Amino acid sequence: MSKIRVEGRRRVVIEGIAPAVDGGRYAVKRTVGDEVRVEADIFADSSDALGAALLAHREGSAEWTEIPMRHLGNDRWAAAFRVSELGRYGFKVQGWVDHFESWRRNLLKRITASTDTPVDYEIGAELIAQAAERAGGADGDWLRARAAVLRFGGEAKHLRTHATDPMLQELVLRYPDKQFATESEPELMVAVEPERARFGSWYEFFPRSTAAEAGRHGSFADCERRLEYVAEMGFHVVYLPPVHPIGLSYRKGRNNTTEAQADDCGSPWAIGAADGGHKAIHRELGTEQDFQRFMARARELGLEVALDVALQASPDHPYVQEHPSWFRARPDGTIEYAENPPKKYQDIYPFDFETEDWRAMWVEFKSIFLHWIGKGVTIFRVDNPHTKAFAFWEWLIAEIKREYPDVLFLSEAFTRPRIMYRLAKIGFSQSYTYFPWRNGKQEITAYLREITQPPVRDFFRANQWTNTPDILTEFLQMGGRAAFGIRLLLAATLGANYGIYGPAFELMESQPLRQGSEEYLNSEKYEIRQWDLERPDSLRPLISRVNAIRNENPALQNDWSLRFHAVDNERLLCYSKEADDGTNLILMVINLDPHYTQRGFVTLPLDELEIPADRGYEAEDLLSGDRYLWHGPRNYVELDPAQRQGHILKLHRRLRLETDFEYFL
Amino acid sequence: MSKIRVEGRRRVVIEGIAPAVDGGRYAVKRTVGDEVRVEADIFADSSDALGAALLAHREGSAEWTEIPMRHLGNDRWAAAFRVSELGRYGFKVQGWVDHFESWRRNLLKRITASTDTPVDYEIGAELIAQAAERAGGADGDWLRARAAVLRFGGEAKHLRTHATDPMLQELVLRYPDKQFATESEPELMVAVEPERARFGSWYEFFPRSTAAEAGRHGSFADCERRLEYVAEMGFHVVYLPPVHPIGLSYRKGRNNTTEAQADDCGSPWAIGAADGGHKAIHRELGTEQDFQRFMARARELGLEVALDVALQASPDHPYVQEHPSWFRARPDGTIEYAENPPKKYQDIYPFDFETEDWRAMWVEFKSIFLHWIGKGVTIFRVDNPHTKAFAFWEWLIAEIKREYPDVLFLSEAFTRPRIMYRLAKIGFSQSYTYFPWRNGKQEITAYLREITQPPVRDFFRANQWTNTPDILTEFLQMGGRAAFGIRLLLAATLGANYGIYGPAFELMESQPLRQGSEEYLNSEKYEIRQWDLERPDSLRPLISRVNAIRNENPALQNDWSLRFHAVDNERLLCYSKEADDGTNLILMVINLDPHYTQRGFVTLPLDELEIPADRGYEAEDLLSGDRYLWHGPRNYVELDPAQRQGHILKLHRRLRLETDFEYFL
Repeated sequence: MSKIRVEGRRRVVIEGIAPAVDGGRYAVKRTVGDEVRVEADIFADSSDALGAALLAHREGSAEWTEIPMRHLGNDRWAAAFRVSELGRYGFKVQGWVDHFESWRRNLLKRITASTDTPVDYEIGAELIAQAAERAGGADGDWLRARAAVLRFGGEAKHLRTHATDPMLQELVLRYPDKQFATESEPELMVAVEPERARFGSWYEFFPRSTAAEAGRHGSFADCERRLEYVAEMGFHVVYLPPVHPIGLSYRKGRNNTTEAQADDCGSPWAIGAADGGHKAIHRELGTEQDFQRFMARARELGLEVALDVALQASPDHPYVQEHPSWFRARPDGTIEYAENPPKKYQDIYPFDFETEDWRAMWVEFKSIFLHWIGKGVTIFRVDNPHTKAFAFWEWLIAEIKREYPDVLFLSEAFTRPRIMYRLAKIGFSQSYTYFPWRNGKQEITAYLREITQPPVRDFFRANQWTNTPDILTEFLQMGGRAAFGIRLLLAATLGANYGIYGPAFELMESQPLRQGSEEYLNSEKYEIRQWDLERPDSLRPLISRVNAIRNENPALQNDWSLRFHAVDNERLLCYSKEADDGTNLILMVINLDPHYTQRGFVTLPLDELEIPADRGYEAEDLLSGDRYLWHGPRNYVELDPAQRQGHILKLHRRLRLETDFEYFL
Repeated sequence: MSKIRVEGRRRVVIEGIAPAVDGGRYAVKRTVGDEVRVEADIFADSSDALGAALLAHREGSAEWTEIPMRHLGNDRWAAAFRVSELGRYGFKVQGWVDHFESWRRNLLKRITASTDTPVDYEIGAELIAQAAERAGGADGDWLRARAAVLRFGGEAKHLRTHATDPMLQELVLRYPDKQFATESEPELMVAVEPERARFGSWYEFFPRSTAAEAGRHGSFADCERRLEYVAEMGFHVVYLPPVHPIGLSYRKGRNNTTEAQADDCGSPWAIGAADGGHKAIHRELGTEQDFQRFMARARELGLEVALDVALQASPDHPYVQEHPSWFRARPDGTIEYAENPPKKYQDIYPFDFETEDWRAMWVEFKSIFLHWIGKGVTIFRVDNPHTKAFAFWEWLIAEIKREYPDVLFLSEAFTRPRIMYRLAKIGFSQSYTYFPWRNGKQEITAYLREITQPPVRDFFRANQWTNTPDILTEFLQMGGRAAFGIRLLLAATLGANYGIYGPAFELMESQPLRQGSEEYLNSEKYEIRQWDLERPDSLRPLISRVNAIRNENPALQNDWSLRFHAVDNERLLCYSKEADDGTNLILMVINLDPHYTQRGFVTLPLDELEIPADRGYEAEDLLSGDRYLWHGPRNYVELDPAQRQGHILKLHRRLRLETDFEYFL
C-alpha cells in the first residue's frame, strides 16, 4: 500500500483564476487606484454550500485583506480589491465547504415541506456551537446561547424562528470553518504602476533641431522653449532621442550615407565618444546644469521627460577600452559591429550578452538607469530591447522598480508578436505596436480587440504612435493633410497612450528617402533640421483640441472599454469608449479614406450603452462643437476628409425626470 | 547590489507548449499507438538561428528520445513522438542558440553579395572546432580537419565550397552546443490508455431481465445467452448495473414506490445485505463460478465487461456494522441517509468523505476495484463520482493505473460542466455527456465542437449514450420509431464511443413514469422485465448495420476529425469524419426532424476534404447501399424520416490516372 500524500478531506477545487498571466508566471499590470476584479471556478463534490474569499496584500506583507467572494453562477465566483499604492500586490483565493449553510439551506426546504424534526435542530445546534468556539468573545457567547436554544427543543414555531434568524446566519458566516479549506497556488502578483502608464500623450522631438537660427545645433536652452510649445498643445510626456556624446568613427552622413562630412552631426544612437558614454551629455547640447534646468522647466510645465536608452556603443565609447570582453572579438582582433548582411552598421558595436563578464555588464547597465533617475528622469524609452537578453530586462526592471516603482519603461520592439508580448510580460510598462501599419477597418478592429481584451491586456499596454523618426508610413506619404488628421484621431482615441514625432508630424513631413522606403528624406537622425512651428497650415490647433478632449474626458483615458460598432460602409470606422463609472461615453466615427467623402449608417447597441431606446439622445461633436439629436440605434454620418476626418461625439443619455421634463446628462 | 539568481546567458524562451492541461497540472490523454504532436513558441532575442528538440520518455525512465523540432513560422515549432505502450509518458522541450547556423546563414548572404573575407571563414572554423570537441570520435576528426581547411584560407572558391558543404551542416547539427540551452518546466505528462478508450460500442442491460420465462429472476447463465445477442449486433462492451446483494431495509418497490412488496427485487444500486457488499454477488444471479463462466463467455465473444461501481451502501451493508465511522451519525444515533430535501432516499447511506478514518476507507474502496480486476473486469462505470471527493478519485485512478494501465473508468456524472471536466482531468478515461439533451443543429454543433477540439479534447473523452435507465428523453418519448433512428445515427457517428441501454432502446420503449418525467414506466431498476428480442419491429438490424459500418470505417473510430458542414435547412445536420491517414472519409447527413421529410443543399469544403473540384465524386450510402455521383461543393439531399433518418456516406475521391482512365479510391 503506497502512502497517501494528500489531505483527503480537502474537498473544494479552485481553478481558472483570472487575471493571471501564463498561469501566474508573470505579474498582472494595473495602475494606482484600480479595482482588481478576481474571478475563479470554485466547486466541490456533492451539493454542499461553499464559502470563498479573496485574500490580497502588499507583496511580502504579513497583513492580508480578506474579501468574501460571491457566486456568479455556473461555479464562477468573484470579488475585487483596490490597489492604492505603487509597487506589487499578491492575491490568492480560498474556498471551503460551509456545513452550517448547507444545513440551513436544507432546513428551509424541510420547513417548507413541514418535515423538520427536533433532530434537524440538534444538528444545527452542534454546527453553531462549533462556530461559537471559533468566534470566542461576545459573538461566541451569543452563538453558544443560540445553540442551547435549538438543542433544547420545544415548539416548532419557536425553533424555526431561531434557526432561520438572518442574524444567526450572518454571525456564523463571520467565523467559517476553514480547517479543510483549499487555497490557490501559486500566489498571483499584480504590478501597480503610476496612472501615466495607462494614460498619456507623448511628443518626441530632436534636441538638435530646436535652435532659432538656421544651421546652429540646438541646446537644452533651446529645448526649454520647445517645451512650452509642447505643453501648450496639451502633451504629458516629452521623449528625447539619446542625448549622449556621439561617436566619430564610421559616423554616418546625411541621409544615412557612409561617408560623413566634417560638419555632419551623426546619429545620436551611435553612443559614446571621448567625452563619455551613456551617462554623459553631448557637448553641443549643453552641460549637466543645462540639462538640470531643462528638467526643472519640464516639471514647471507639468511635463515628464522620457529618455532613450539604447544599449549599444560607438567604436569610440569608453566601454570599448574599459570592457573589451563585453564585445565580441573576431579572429583578427577587431570587434564585431552590428550587421544584417549585406548591410553593415560599422558605427555601432552591439554588446555580447553571452560574455563571461555578463554579471558586471548587467550591473553597469543598471547604473545607467539609476544615473538618470537621479537626475529626475522617470520614463525610459528603451531602444530595440529585443536585441538584448530577455533575462536581463526581467532582472533590470524588477531591480529598478523595487526601489523606484514610479519609473516607466516603454519597449521599442517592432518585431514578431511573441517577442513583443514577452517583453511586456517580463516588465515593460508600455510597448510600441503595429498600429502605424493598420489602416483598414478589419485589421484595425482585429488588432485593437486583441490588445484591449484578456489575456493580452493584462500584461501588454499599447502606446499608439502616428509616426516615429524611423516610420513614415505609406499612408502618411500618400494621403496628404487628411491622412495626418485620420491617423491623429485614430491614435489619440484608440490609444489612451499615444504619441507623435514632431514637428515632422504637425508640419506634415511626408517625403520618403526614396520610393518604397519608410525613412524620412533629410532625416533628423543624421542632420539638424529647422522647423517653422508657426506655419499657418500646421496641425497644431487640431492636436491641441484633441489633447484637450482627451484630458477632459475620462472615457479616452483607458483602453479596456473599447467597443467597435457596425457601420454599413467599409471606409467608416465606429467605436466607443466609456469611463469606468459609466458617466462619460464617447463615440468615434472616423473616415479611413483620406481622399473621398464617405457616408453611411452607424448602428449602436443602445442596450449595452445604456441609452434608452424610446427617446432621442444628443451626440455632441467635441471637435466641431456641432450637436446632433439622434434617435434609435441607426444614425446617419457623412465625413468629407478635406473638411473633417472624424467625429469625436460625446453621447448625452437623456433622462426623464419625475416632473416629466427631460434633461441631458 | 542584490544577487543575480539566473543564468544570464540562457537566451532562449519556451512558452505556450501544447498539448498541456491546465499548464501541466494534469496529464494529456492519448491511446496506444497515437502520435503526440507537440508545439511550442520558441524564440530568443536578436536574430540568431535557433535549434530545438522535443524530449520524450516513459515516466520515470532515464532514457529519453530526442526528436528535432521544426519551425512552422511565427516562432511556433513542432515535433511528434509515438506512444506505443500503455502507461504514462513525459515530455519536455529544449531550445538553444545555434551559433554555427547563424554564421552559416550570414555567410551565405555574404557570398551572394561577394563580401566574404578570410576572417569570416576563421570565425566558422572556430565554431566547427568547438563542434569537433563535442563530437569526438570519427566525426570529431572530420570536423577538426574541415576547421583546419577553413582556417588555413586560400582561394575564395575553395573556401566557399568547404564552408557551405551540406555534409558539414548536417554533422555540426548533430552535436549542438547546449551549454546555455533552455529546458521547459514542468515535465508534461501523457496518459496512454487502450484503444478501447477512444473507440467502442457499448450495450447496457439488466442481468435480472434475461430469463427466458416470465417472472423468473435472470441469472448469469441467462446473461451468457444475452451476450451472444449483443455480440451479434457488433458491440464491444457490455455494461451491467451492480451485481451485488441488494438491501432489504427501506427497499424500493416497483416504479420507485417507498413500500416494497414481498416479491419486489429492489434497486441494484442499494448495495449490500447479509450476503455481503461490493465484493459479493447477488445470490439470484448465481455464484462466483457462474460469474466466472459469464466472463469467459464474454471473452470468447470478443466482448469486454464493464461493471458498475456505486460507492454507497444500503442500511444492510456489512460496512455499516464494521465501519460505522464511515457514515455520518445524527445526534439521535441514526445514520444520515441520502437526501435532497424534501426527497429522501432511506435505502441508501452515502459515505462520509470527511470521516477521520478516510485513509482506511480509501484503501478499502481501492480493494473493491482490485477484487473485480482479479476476476477479469477491465472497465468500471462509476456511478455518481461527483458525490465523492475529487482527491479520492485522483488517488484511486492513479493507484489502479500504476499496476493496471489497461483498466478504463467511465464517469457517470450528469452535473455542471466544470465538475464533469474536473473528473476527466483527474483521470476518468471517458465521460457521459449532455448529448442526450442536444437535439437542435446549433446546440449539437456547439457542444460537439467544444468537446472535440483543444483544450477539452486533450482530457475529456465523450461516451455518447442514446438513453440510460435514468434517461428516457422527451425526444424519444415523442418522436416514435424515427426518433430512435435519429438518436442512434447521431450517437454512433458523432461519438467514436457510444452506447445504448437495451433492450429498451431497440424495442423503442418510450413510456415515461409520468408526463414530464425522464424515468421509464415499469423501470428495470425496480422490477424484472421480460423482453421479446425477436419482435419484428426491433431496431436490431439497423443497430447491427451501424455497428458494422463503425467497425469497418476508421473514420468513425475517432472524434478529433469531426467537422460540421453547411446545409441550407435547419433540420438537416451534416458533418464528416476522416481516418488519421486520410484514406477513409465519411460524411453524415441526418434529418433531425422525426416527423417530416426535410430537403436541402449540402455545401462541402472540397479543398479541405481534398476532393478535386473539377470532377465528380462518389457518395456511397453505407446504410442503404445507394450510390450517388456528386459534383462540386453543393449537392442535394432529401430524407423522409419514416424511411430513413440519415445518410452515412463514404466519399470516394476520384483520381485521374496517367492513362486518363478514372478510378475511385
